[in-house]
Amino acid sequence: MNPAVVSTGGSLIRALNARKKATSIDLGLGEPTLAPDIAYFEEAVRWVAEHGCHYTANVGDAHLRAAIARYYDYPAMRAAENVCITTGSQEALYVVVKTMLDPAKDELLLVEPAFSVYDKLAAVEGIALQRVSMPAQTGFAFDAQRILEALTPRTRLILICSPCNPTGRVVSRAEVAKITRALGERGGAPIYILHDEIYRELVYTEDAGSFGESYPYTIAINSLSKSNALTGLRIGWFMAPSEAMGELVKMHSWATSCASTVGQVIAARIFAEEALGVQQPWYAAARDAAMSAARDAGLPYVVPDGAFYLCVDVGVEDDVAFAYRLIDECDVVAIPGSNFGSASRGWLRTSFVGPPEALREGFTRIASLRATYEGAVRPNG
Amino acid sequence: MNPAVVSTGGSLIRALNARKKATSIDLGLGEPTLAPDIAYFEEAVRWVAEHGCHYTANVGDAHLRAAIARYYDYPAMRAAENVCITTGSQEALYVVVKTMLDPAKDELLLVEPAFSVYDKLAAVEGIALQRVSMPAQTGFAFDAQRILEALTPRTRLILICSPCNPTGRVVSRAEVAKITRALGERGGAPIYILHDEIYRELVYTEDAGSFGESYPYTIAINSLSKSNALTGLRIGWFMAPSEAMGELVKMHSWATSCASTVGQVIAARIFAEEALGVQQPWYAAARDAAMSAARDAGLPYVVPDGAFYLCVDVGVEDDVAFAYRLIDECDVVAIPGSNFGSASRGWLRTSFVGPPEALREGFTRIASLRATYEGAVRPNG
Repeated sequence: MNPAVVSTGGSLIRALNARKKATSIDLGLGEPTLAPDIAYFEEAVRWVAEHGCHYTANVGDAHLRAAIARYYDYPAMRAAENVCITTGSQEALYVVVKTMLDPAKDELLLVEPAFSVYDKLAAVEGIALQRVSMPAQTGFAFDAQRILEALTPRTRLILICSPCNPTGRVVSRAEVAKITRALGERGGAPIYILHDEIYRELVYTEDAGSFGESYPYTIAINSLSKSNALTGLRIGWFMAPSEAMGELVKMHSWATSCASTVGQVIAARIFAEEALGVQQPWYAAARDAAMSAARDAGLPYVVPDGAFYLCVDVGVEDDVAFAYRLIDECDVVAIPGSNFGSASRGWLRTSFVGPPEALREGFTRIASLRATYEGAVRPNG
Repeated sequence: MNPAVVSTGGSLIRALNARKKATSIDLGLGEPTLAPDIAYFEEAVRWVAEHGCHYTANVGDAHLRAAIARYYDYPAMRAAENVCITTGSQEALYVVVKTMLDPAKDELLLVEPAFSVYDKLAAVEGIALQRVSMPAQTGFAFDAQRILEALTPRTRLILICSPCNPTGRVVSRAEVAKITRALGERGGAPIYILHDEIYRELVYTEDAGSFGESYPYTIAINSLSKSNALTGLRIGWFMAPSEAMGELVKMHSWATSCASTVGQVIAARIFAEEALGVQQPWYAAARDAAMSAARDAGLPYVVPDGAFYLCVDVGVEDDVAFAYRLIDECDVVAIPGSNFGSASRGWLRTSFVGPPEALREGFTRIASLRATYEGAVRPNG
């Protein structure tokens, strides 16, 4: 067996979900509960009836790739050749981390709090990882200065998820400008930025920065999973400058050959109709309801700029133990903040994808467990 | 960049295909030209309309996995927990090779001629590879003795594709028994067999061995791509004994999270109707036509026991140069045998998935180029 696989831990979220009961209020969900537009599926079936269900090129369907490049219009990746279709954003993440770094000498800088699979990808590839935390005291706001100070001579890739899972914070245009200006002035081999934009269509601010708009060494990752309630479609993509595409696509072809043809046909229809943001108003209303429920329950929270998560502060030292008690005693699933890095220890990630009344009841139970909780409080809690 | 990715070559087949013209007779195809049954797609759309398009569990849908385990009925992997659904057999191959071997000390033994991506997977993971060739003199027949003699103390995985791409040969029950008996008598850490069975449903012999039927350390890989003309569905799977599943599924979850939900719904319908072999008679007829056309063109060939390839002997030293001339001067695409290992150098892999008259014309042109070819002949050609 490969010792890097064996020694890298599994998913805490999956372990928590395994304790879930049929009656549970599930605030741990990482996917939409909305229904996708079935018309796209019907069109795809007509397409298959006419064309069959063959492989696409490894890199993906040329028309879809051109449509994606056009939609984002990032200066360094405006052509179809800058886009590769993958099996969800998960495969895109894996391929980029594996390909862009030399395990013998390069480092990945991970901006935390962050999706808990990023560090595992580095671990399984034997890639050295540095972490830089955006502190709870500033509501986990992205801070260019902190990120830049964490660079080392070995840093070759910075991984940023914005809108952020779990915090919901978005990197502002000003912070993007500070980071890209400093990176541009460094000289030497470029430091790439891997911008995971999977929640890009779900933002509630005018000031959402995108590294692809100004930084030529950006690799952007996205999918239709969150924007269009299509997690099960498994269609994602990475966009990268031309000089990186050859190696990235080669690695992608070994990992999965190519993405689902049916999924790519559906994706092409969605891009043709520019229907990526259609569900955003639903999430904006759900976010308002979530913040209102947290206030009513007396739970401190971070105002999310994007995504569909509300991080609430329960101020405990051992948030994993708290989360297990929350399931076992209160029948509520929420994800402990320490799962996403040390800065969010003592917080819980809740998601507002479900019915508002369930969220309200869930928050009441969280506040109630917190009020009677006899465990240690977090030093800064 | 990761030097293992950079230094591992891309696909010769893709490079050849890039030279293809609209008028070309394409005997290089590695996928069916038949249409899939559209009814499964229509049912899947009704399913999505009712259930949405959510993630499945990382390991795949439980009902589909149980159906697959039941269908194959391999003694060491009879439960749903022994099956993981992947993005085609390509992801299954990648995950198994990456997870089952320790690059620091283990070796993969590859039985050649073999699908040209296997050795690249080992290379990109830094895994030492030994090759053992089934010789042309015996029609590339699988030979247990040769395979067993190639084992070293470091061999931990033997990779066998049967029915074989490119030769079409099938490992017989007797050869399977010889191999598994010898492996069972060795003692020490088990040597796993990775049996790529992707052409399992397309066999033309009663004597097709399956390692899963008798050897408990078998990992079997398959997909619906070839059996049901569904290469673009991207649904494959690996089956493994229970002790290996945890690590394999973990690696799978990092690579792609989970396979397409729509694809899994379609797959479940196909297994429920036991519709995996429905297209076999078409291929059996196409195989007869292909052998007849090769005979008429005077091209020596290996009688295929399975799959949809006919290997024909053109007896040249540089079969890559021959294949390029075949495209450029004769407008015929065929894959040079050296792409699959040294034993098949000087041969061409042709596929009989297309119209018989095109195959007949293609063989005539191959024979004609061979007759006038002034390049060196293969030492044994």
